[in-house]
Amino acid sequence: MTPERHARLRATLDRRQPDLSVIMDGVHKPHNIAAIVRTCDAVGILDVHAALPDNLARFPAGTALGSQRWVNIHYHDDGEEAIRRVRDQGMQVLAAHFSDRAVPYRELDYTRPTTLLLGTEKFGVSEAAAEAADEHVIIPMMGMVASFNVSVAAAIILAEVCEQRRAAGLYDRRRVDPATYQHTLFQWSHP
Amino acid sequence: MTPERHARLRATLDRRQPDLSVIMDGVHKPHNIAAIVRTCDAVGILDVHAALPDNLARFPAGTALGSQRWVNIHYHDDGEEAIRRVRDQGMQVLAAHFSDRAVPYRELDYTRPTTLLLGTEKFGVSEAAAEAADEHVIIPMMGMVASFNVSVAAAIILAEVCEQRRAAGLYDRRRVDPATYQHTLFQWSHP
Ligand SMILES: C[S@@+](CC[C@H](N)C(=O)[O-])C[C@H]1O[C@@H](n2cnc3c(N)ncnc32)[C@H](O)[C@@H]1O
Ligand SMILES: C[S@@+](CC[C@H](N)C(=O)[O-])C[C@H]1O[C@@H](n2cnc3c(N)ncnc32)[C@H](O)[C@@H]1O
Repeated sequence: MTPERHARLRATLDRRQPDLSVIMDGVHKPHNIAAIVRTCDAVGILDVHAALPDNLARFPAGTALGSQRWVNIHYHDDGEEAIRRVRDQGMQVLAAHFSDRAVPYRELDYTRPTTLLLGTEKFGVSEAAAEAADEHVIIPMMGMVASFNVSVAAAIILAEVCEQRRAAGLYDRRRVDPATYQHTLFQWSHP
Repeated sequence: MTPERHARLRATLDRRQPDLSVIMDGVHKPHNIAAIVRTCDAVGILDVHAALPDNLARFPAGTALGSQRWVNIHYHDDGEEAIRRVRDQGMQVLAAHFSDRAVPYRELDYTRPTTLLLGTEKFGVSEAAAEAADEHVIIPMMGMVASFNVSVAAAIILAEVCEQRRAAGLYDRRRVDPATYQHTLFQWSHP
């Protein structure tokens, strides 16, 4: 590995946000999963949680452009298990979900430890997951179609998260704990 | 058609932005085209321009959820032709493109008549189109992978466009000219 490459890995790891993650609750189309994981890498997410039906492929061959190498994917039996996990880590859980209590996505504070939960392509967020979430977040829509593609919705919200965290200086200092840092750097350097 | 449905069509048309459009310059994966058109509907875009190689399907069967019914798709032989067309309409052309002159996407004024140009999945924006564009716009990236999925990049920028136009009140009054309004309402009402 060249020194430049090593410096690049370190610089990326220095921007990783241990207090930011995503739960894909039943998202199952490979190109959507691929696009979401790729977006997670781009906004500095290290951990993604996937609750997927058993009969579905675990990770798509699609165009994640190798991003699954830079993001840890944790598999769960269902969304509630994933929610319990991130809650143990002190995260607020925001479900991207249409409901009476949904808050427009630009009005929330994403500098707090945050997990964004996304629902399935067809049926959206399950009732159990919606119930368990701290808040529901919504992207206002001006058109005829009732929802965005799930990877698009993830990206719009995560871009706002990124912007708030950039403004707060959260990408300017190392935030991953030393043990995780060393472990991850080793993994990234030794494919 | 029920009165409610008709009112819904009118309300949507009242929010359509005649001075906002998108050029897909060589974007060819059906699920990307579908997601982009669906996002266009959601932010109030009426006209999308597609410059696609001849041997590619004109419109995907994919999951645009019928959004192609609410958005007019104009086909062109190449990106430059599409650029000439929107420039004749008085638009600034912003290419989503990595370059030395690229401006971070939150720093531009999208309340001006604007067309967003997107490049191909593999090779990005062509040199000719980059040259012809008024500005290059970039979404900062914090990770290892060098670019977003094209429909994701489109969505992140268009969500900012939508936010600026919402704040400026551009969704609060009818902006489509009377002839286009009647014509479009007729089309939408008679599938
Ligand atoms: C295609 S949508 C699901 C649509 C489903 N019919 C419903 O009513 O929930 C898939 C997921 O994308 C996210 N999503 C899509 N559009 C959204 C919006 N405007 N605001 C918030 N989340 C959205 C949600 O997480 C949703 O569960
Ligand atoms: C997958 S990218 C193309 C990558 C190509 N290898 C390149 O270097 O341009 C497809 C299109 O998405 C848009 N795009 C992707 N990431 C972007 C970003 N961070 N900023 C602006 N546009 C982006 C651009 O329009 C680009 O042409």
